Amino acid sequence: MPKPELLETFPNPYADRAYEIHMVCNEFTSLCPLGGVESDAAELALLKGGAPDFGTITITYVPAAACVELKSLKLYLWSYRDAAVFYERAVNRILDDLNAAVSPRWMRVVGDFNVRGGIKSVITATVGVRPQAK
Amino acid sequence: MPKPELLETFPNPYADRAYEIHMVCNEFTSLCPLGGVESDAAELALLKGGAPDFGTITITYVPAAACVELKSLKLYLWSYRDAAVFYERAVNRILDDLNAAVSPRWMRVVGDFNVRGGIKSVITATVGVRPQAK
Amino acid sequence: MPKPELLETFPNPYADRAYEIHMVCNEFTSLCPLGGVESDAAELALLKGGAPDFGTITITYVPAAACVELKSLKLYLWSYRDAAVFYERAVNRILDDLNAAVSPRWMRVVGDFNVRGGIKSVITATVGVRPQAK
Amino acid sequence: MPKPELLETFPNPYADRAYEIHMVCNEFTSLCPLGGVESDAAELALLKGGAPDFGTITITYVPAAACVELKSLKLYLWSYRDAAVFYERAVNRILDDLNAAVSPRWMRVVGDFNVRGGIKSVITATVGVRPQAK
Amino acid sequence: MPKPELLETFPNPYADRAYEIHMVCNEFTSLCPLGGVESDAAELALLKGGAPDFGTITITYVPAAACVELKSLKLYLWSYRDAAVFYERAVNRILDDLNAAVSPRWMRVVGDFNVRGGIKSVITATVGVRPQAK
Amino acid sequence: MPKPELLETFPNPYADRAYEIHMVCNEFTSLCPLGGVESDAAELALLKGGAPDFGTITITYVPAAACVELKSLKLYLWSYRDAAVFYERAVNRILDDLNAAVSPRWMRVVGDFNVRGGIKSVITATVGVRPQAK
Amino acid sequence: MPKPELLETFPNPYADRAYEIHMVCNEFTSLCPLGGVESDAAELALLKGGAPDFGTITITYVPAAACVELKSLKLYLWSYRDAAVFYERAVNRILDDLNAAVSPRWMRVVGDFNVRGGIKSVITATVGVRPQAK
Amino acid sequence: MPKPELLETFPNPYADRAYEIHMVCNEFTSLCPLGGVESDAAELALLKGGAPDFGTITITYVPAAACVELKSLKLYLWSYRDAAVFYERAVNRILDDLNAAVSPRWMRVVGDFNVRGGIKSVITATVGVRPQAK
Amino acid sequence: MPKPELLETFPNPYADRAYEIHMVCNEFTSLCPLGGVESDAAELALLKGGAPDFGTITITYVPAAACVELKSLKLYLWSYRDAAVFYERAVNRILDDLNAAVSPRWMRVVGDFNVRGGIKSVITATVGVRPQAK
Amino acid sequence: MPKPELLETFPNPYADRAYEIHMVCNEFTSLCPLGGVESDAAELALLKGGAPDFGTITITYVPAAACVELKSLKLYLWSYRDAAVFYERAVNRILDDLNAAVSPRWMRVVGDFNVRGGIKSVITATVGVRPQAK
Repeated sequence: MPKPELLETFPNPYADRAYEIHMVCNEFTSLCPLGGVESDAAELALLKGGAPDFGTITITYVPAAACVELKSLKLYLWSYRDAAVFYERAVNRILDDLNAAVSPRWMRVVGDFNVRGGIKSVITATVGVRPQAK
Repeated sequence: MPKPELLETFPNPYADRAYEIHMVCNEFTSLCPLGGVESDAAELALLKGGAPDFGTITITYVPAAACVELKSLKLYLWSYRDAAVFYERAVNRILDDLNAAVSPRWMRVVGDFNVRGGIKSVITATVGVRPQAK
Repeated sequence: MPKPELLETFPNPYADRAYEIHMVCNEFTSLCPLGGVESDAAELALLKGGAPDFGTITITYVPAAACVELKSLKLYLWSYRDAAVFYERAVNRILDDLNAAVSPRWMRVVGDFNVRGGIKSVITATVGVRPQAK
Repeated sequence: MPKPELLETFPNPYADRAYEIHMVCNEFTSLCPLGGVESDAAELALLKGGAPDFGTITITYVPAAACVELKSLKLYLWSYRDAAVFYERAVNRILDDLNAAVSPRWMRVVGDFNVRGGIKSVITATVGVRPQAK
Repeated sequence: MPKPELLETFPNPYADRAYEIHMVCNEFTSLCPLGGVESDAAELALLKGGAPDFGTITITYVPAAACVELKSLKLYLWSYRDAAVFYERAVNRILDDLNAAVSPRWMRVVGDFNVRGGIKSVITATVGVRPQAK
Repeated sequence: MPKPELLETFPNPYADRAYEIHMVCNEFTSLCPLGGVESDAAELALLKGGAPDFGTITITYVPAAACVELKSLKLYLWSYRDAAVFYERAVNRILDDLNAAVSPRWMRVVGDFNVRGGIKSVITATVGVRPQAK
Repeated sequence: MPKPELLETFPNPYADRAYEIHMVCNEFTSLCPLGGVESDAAELALLKGGAPDFGTITITYVPAAACVELKSLKLYLWSYRDAAVFYERAVNRILDDLNAAVSPRWMRVVGDFNVRGGIKSVITATVGVRPQAK
Repeated sequence: MPKPELLETFPNPYADRAYEIHMVCNEFTSLCPLGGVESDAAELALLKGGAPDFGTITITYVPAAACVELKSLKLYLWSYRDAAVFYERAVNRILDDLNAAVSPRWMRVVGDFNVRGGIKSVITATVGVRPQAK
Repeated sequence: MPKPELLETFPNPYADRAYEIHMVCNEFTSLCPLGGVESDAAELALLKGGAPDFGTITITYVPAAACVELKSLKLYLWSYRDAAVFYERAVNRILDDLNAAVSPRWMRVVGDFNVRGGIKSVITATVGVRPQAK
Repeated sequence: MPKPELLETFPNPYADRAYEIHMVCNEFTSLCPLGGVESDAAELALLKGGAPDFGTITITYVPAAACVELKSLKLYLWSYRDAAVFYERAVNRILDDLNAAVSPRWMRVVGDFNVRGGIKSVITATVGVRPQAK
């Protein structure tokens, strides 16, 4: 299951400035909930026919006191590999976990998932208010 | 005929947040109304010359208390396969059925249909007011 | 000559909702007015050197009480095949005929015609005020 | 189920000439075999979870004594709408049915199907020897 | 109906040289045969529901003693406007009529027709043997 | 020299409606002023080394009582072929001549000229105020 | 060195109208300042290792009483060929020289220079206020 | 380590004008912090497995009294070649060093870095307020 | 300096088959020879003005008994970061070092380097004879 | 005037191998011969109206004992900046000068020049026989 404890941060070296960080991971994979029920028993799910999901996660934020360490973010996103979650939960949980870790001034997470059953899904969630570009 | 009873929902795991869900199904098919009369008798319609219609349905919404379960949406859209409906009714009915199922804050349905008789049709319908992007 | 009596309508199944219908016909053909004079005598025109015109007609509207039936629209547009008309009249007449048939809240007709004498023409005409997108 | 009896032909108006006819239908749809078993009971299949398949069928042939009438080909391809067949059977059966109907000098059928389970399939089958292009 | 008598020619000014002429007309239109029966009664056909067809005719040839006069070719192609013919006949007849008019060393006619009933058709016919490019 | 007397008009068949006409001629040619002096003596100019200019003229207008007849516009634009004029004059004169001929509600003329001496030029001139799109 | 005396003008033939002139020269070349010192001694500079610079100069303006004569502009831009100048000075000087020559209502000069030392530079300078498009 | 002392400036030759300078360096390289710890010991870092980072640095600014000399900027950016720094620090430090060197009216630095661990990063930082385009 | 001792190999698991391996590294960087003299003293070179070079190395080979281990190839290519070498030597040396390490049936190395002094360079070197595609 | 004495070479580090070097300079500029007479008096030529020419020089060769040093090639190509030469001479002279300097196994020089008087020119010259690609 998602492991927010993997997320590491480092002090924002320029905390006085409202600058923007944009990260794109096009290698996100999780499992589709079996029978519409989310589950941690991923290995079981896969055996029973729960299909892997693939997608691109895009994170944009304006840091406050802390920044997300890139390698730890990679490990955190890898921790969804065996989780059976709805897209809606995945995107919002990534937003919540990152928000809890770095308390940004503003953050947006977009999950753009591959076609499943002939349907493509894109989920977008946000916290805070984006500072105006100058 | 369209079977809204196929639509299943799950509680919005992040109901406090105005986030956006975007879904694209480019494998929608229904039947064209026979002699301009809509009908359930699909097999009959097909035999008599009612032509199949093909198109792409795009649904964008901001959920309130509930989300549409993806697999059930797929089954619901499949249920148009044997329905003889006008494009205008199909798009508005999908909007109505989804609206009844999940009562979103805002929802838009776009039906982009293949050329028929040398004419391409795109229908767009909306309920609610889209929350401002932050 | 154009035959507006071919246009058929059906009651707008969702008349309370300001939704949008967009139709594109890229197989429109008519005849160029002979010596600058519009005429019904198409066969005559063609023999005397009146050239065929080709173009794309795009219709976008927000229906009120009625919708245009697609097949009848096709037949109506075919009825220009033997008419010798100026582009300006063709586009405005299509708008007038459709407006008379379905009295939409708003309608726009665009005629995008192939090059003639080294000159390309696009005519755009509108009735009503377009409802704001939400 | 596929209805080869729908196929109509007309005498090749230029039977002495080895010319080529190429037809593309990008609105082909059938049903996926339920539990790996092909079946005619389409409505049953759909209810039980057999998924619709979508694809493009491309037919290229050099006619001998007869040509396929276009509208009858359309009706024939529509007759797969309620058939639960493997891709491999669909493509080869279309080739067989057309071959039986018009006995061409050479014919090739290609089925290019939409992604299912993350996998795209293209099937190609041929009868006869293609005359050399001159 | 097609009027080959409209075709005019002029003596090939460089008849000793095997050079190539390539002409594309993307404004070809004819009528679809009513009930599968070809006919000259175009006005009748249109009233009864015979649909207009649209396509692009591409002619490539290596002239011998004569060349096709361009304006006469335009008038000849216009003469299909009121003819109800199969695609197969149209392409082969254009080839025959041009062949009769200019007796080229080699000629190829390709008719690429707009989608009808969800099916696109391309017909290719040739006379003679194409001289090798040097 | 430019011959505005070639311009013909016809009564705007829909003068009550603020609709838009857009025409593009990508075959405009004139002569470059010899020694920076504009001149009618085109034949002379060409002999002395005045180079031909090529460009695209785009005219967009909302007609009032009259419309420009297309063939006469073509003849008018051809009349610049032997005129030695600055780009600035050509574009503004076309605007003035058309304005004088049809007194539109609004008109814009854009001249987009081919590279000369390594420099590309685009001139844009307007009369009136463009009615708001609805 | 830049020779503004090469610039010639002609009276704006349509001075009452706020029309726009846009010119692009993609063959601009000058020399890079030797040791950070700008210089006229071009031949010397080149021998000592001052590198040629290449770029595209784009000039857009709304003329008042006078227009820039195109050929003289070309000669003026050529006069930078042997000048060793900073990009910043080149763009602003072109703006100043043209401004002095024709006193436009508004003018913008953009210099888009080729990569040097792995770095691409674009400089944009403006005088006056651009009249609103109508 | 970054060497801001390499940055050289020259007096803005047009200090009264609010013009814009835009520079793109697509050959930026630094080292990734070893174990999340930034360091100067580059050679050591590389031996121990600290990976090189690659990216594009884009600088846009409106100069006040001084401009950045291009060659010195190149040398300054090269000085990151052996520095092990977080992306966030690199972008903000470049902004700070340039800001200290030329005190612009407004400056924006964007660092667009190559994929690392399957994640792409883009950092954007700004000082001052951008003057309005006229 | 280049460190071929970093290259590791593993036994080709399918040594009987002539299959092809293609690898692209678009993050290659080295230093340009100072005064045309190649050197290991990289830090010195950089201080004295030797510029970094950037390019893309593409390696294609048909393995015999051994394959190049991917991570070791990465480390090997990183070892050019502080080497001052001519492009010609870099490409040929990579070919020689890889050839010595895995003795392929055929190998080609292409170095595509960024523009320097306005000149782009591509070097291509090969050992062995490429097996025919079957 | 062209200065072949600027060309420097270095010993081919891999002279036993028939590898290929490909160099592209898209910043070549020279002067057009004044009155059709080639000349060294560049400054004079420019004043009298001899126009600068711009183009791309592409050099591909297989070295024998020596390679062209890149920076010296740049200086050599710069030496055409003040030469008034025909395109044909420029390309062939570059080939001759490089051939004299490095005596390659095979060399090709292509000059692709910007449009002049509406005509684009490309000149290609070769010495030796290209070794077969393996």
